[in-house]
Amino acid sequence: MVVKIEVFGEGLNQLINGNLIIFKRWIRSRKPVKIGDMVELIDEEENPVACGIWDKIGARILNFNECPNSLDDLIFEKFEFSKKSRERMGYENVYRLIHGDGDLFPGLIVDVYGPLAVIQSSSMAIDTIIPIIVKELVKVTGVDTVAEKSVQRVRSKSNLPPREKIHLGSRKEVIVEVDIEGIKYYVSLKSRKTGLYLDQRENRVYTRRFARGSSFLDLFSYTGGFGLNALHEGARHVTFVDKDTEALSALKKNLKLNNIDDSRVRIVKEDAFKFLRRSVKRDLNYEVTSVDPPALMDDYKDGLQRYKEVYVLSSQLSKDISVLSSCSRSMKLPLFISTVYDSVREPYSLLEVRGSAPDHPIRRGLEDYLKVAYVSYEG
Amino acid sequence: MVVKIEVFGEGLNQLINGNLIIFKRWIRSRKPVKIGDMVELIDEEENPVACGIWDKIGARILNFNECPNSLDDLIFEKFEFSKKSRERMGYENVYRLIHGDGDLFPGLIVDVYGPLAVIQSSSMAIDTIIPIIVKELVKVTGVDTVAEKSVQRVRSKSNLPPREKIHLGSRKEVIVEVDIEGIKYYVSLKSRKTGLYLDQRENRVYTRRFARGSSFLDLFSYTGGFGLNALHEGARHVTFVDKDTEALSALKKNLKLNNIDDSRVRIVKEDAFKFLRRSVKRDLNYEVTSVDPPALMDDYKDGLQRYKEVYVLSSQLSKDISVLSSCSRSMKLPLFISTVYDSVREPYSLLEVRGSAPDHPIRRGLEDYLKVAYVSYEG
Repeated sequence: MVVKIEVFGEGLNQLINGNLIIFKRWIRSRKPVKIGDMVELIDEEENPVACGIWDKIGARILNFNECPNSLDDLIFEKFEFSKKSRERMGYENVYRLIHGDGDLFPGLIVDVYGPLAVIQSSSMAIDTIIPIIVKELVKVTGVDTVAEKSVQRVRSKSNLPPREKIHLGSRKEVIVEVDIEGIKYYVSLKSRKTGLYLDQRENRVYTRRFARGSSFLDLFSYTGGFGLNALHEGARHVTFVDKDTEALSALKKNLKLNNIDDSRVRIVKEDAFKFLRRSVKRDLNYEVTSVDPPALMDDYKDGLQRYKEVYVLSSQLSKDISVLSSCSRSMKLPLFISTVYDSVREPYSLLEVRGSAPDHPIRRGLEDYLKVAYVSYEG
Repeated sequence: MVVKIEVFGEGLNQLINGNLIIFKRWIRSRKPVKIGDMVELIDEEENPVACGIWDKIGARILNFNECPNSLDDLIFEKFEFSKKSRERMGYENVYRLIHGDGDLFPGLIVDVYGPLAVIQSSSMAIDTIIPIIVKELVKVTGVDTVAEKSVQRVRSKSNLPPREKIHLGSRKEVIVEVDIEGIKYYVSLKSRKTGLYLDQRENRVYTRRFARGSSFLDLFSYTGGFGLNALHEGARHVTFVDKDTEALSALKKNLKLNNIDDSRVRIVKEDAFKFLRRSVKRDLNYEVTSVDPPALMDDYKDGLQRYKEVYVLSSQLSKDISVLSSCSRSMKLPLFISTVYDSVREPYSLLEVRGSAPDHPIRRGLEDYLKVAYVSYEG
């Protein structure tokens, strides 16, 4: 049974503007409605204007249409649509199926890694309907394991406890092997976030075009995405730097999985800032450097200063190309670009600025998520 | 012989900030200096700080180093460096060799299409040294034909007449056949600008990922770059729309060159705005549309309104994906993004925003050249 709720006044404007959360103050309900219920939003003339889920704060919009017969159907249709759109992007085995608002599914993230799906909820409504999500996920994607990794900071703002759980599947240790553009990776739920940071997927592959024959430095390497792509393309040598023991242990597994000869690789367990300062003093050089720090501006008050320092130092180490990333939402694109300009050494040119992979679609207001600048140097 | 000129005061700051034109008022010359002369910029302690060419307005910087022995050597080194950097990008046969300021060569554009190089000058100094440019180009790239297409509007601001000329080669009609990622194109100097609009090269290829099996609309098609890539990827059918007779005649040649079956193609010689209005009235639909208008904001007072109109209408025709371009320098990136958001139909997601190909590097202040948004629609 669909619960119908009436939207009025400003709520209707918000809907017309494509807002995906319609707050309670713009809504009248004729029947009692519970968190996690499917709700059909209607205007004063009873015309259906959207379909969504009821949450603590109001309605989360999943469609600008009439509701289907059940919440199960609504979610099935959303997943089915997203799966098809990923196939249109050429992604069949490893992809982000649902990217929150960007896929008109506010509050939910779903990553698929072959037989494993990892979900992340940031709302009470999504927490409530997890059983339906798991069921429909299996139907649409064919995964045999569904794990949850709802440990992101934003949950505490809504008074939601962290959750880390296996909802479906008999794997003891959740670890799967996937292939992305010719490179094999282990995905383990011990890793941070939902696994591989798929948002950088296309940028890692794109970096190949500059890596052939190079000595390559992969700073903040995590499990090795950038350096593995460089090695795949024929980089002479890659230096991986990260301070996280678990990330480096996963990196070592990935190197073995891809049959990379030890002589082509150096792994440094150290804070990347320390490594940079030391290397600049010793006047070291790499043809290509990749710098993919964590969200410094979200984590530190002097985050901008830290970005500048890491960009300044790494550009001094780079002979040919720097690949500079920022994934701070607090660092808007214009600020990112001017930070890059202020930090890199002369003479430089900016080859390109790129964002996240297309399976991370966005809507108004969130366009400043991941930003990557490719900078080249002369002489 | 190198002419040494002394830079002082604000001029030195400008150099430190990476400015590539140092105006006369910040310069003292000890000997007479002519337009087109190589000049070494020195500071008050006689240290060399840059090397460049003397122009009507001052010095154009080509290097932040000492000058080599001759202007010929300086230009050879610049071309050689750029050629190597293009090879690093994976470009070997067709590429922009010099992109003005972005390659630290203010005032010069050079495109290479296999055996043909097309140059474009926007300064008196570059006009003056064309013979050296032609000679060194042949040495570095091995082309047998060098044509000039200096017909851009910006020349009139500097009181430079338009120039269209073949500086080297015996080809009667300058037309060559090139291959870009598996697609063949004729390049003719009858075409607009320097040939193929290489800035869109990567975006055309990228569009393939959404084109398979689709009915595809290529608006403002010019010689067919987007649609040809869609056909290559297995689009069911492509409709090309342009009002320019010569562009369409080149398109027809390109279709033949790629053995495209007539049944997969429709060519409409019409103003794209008219085509759009008519098609929306008739409720036509295409799975993917590509909209790559000329620089509307540079050409029209109501350019922004025109962009909006074309984006609104084309999003109504698009079932799955719109590829929306703007190459107005007057349309900055944030304005472009908000124009897209204001124009496309709900429910949409923004998959990606991309810029020009990496052989079009940029420096501070020019980052808003080409912008392309990939937008997907639901339901």
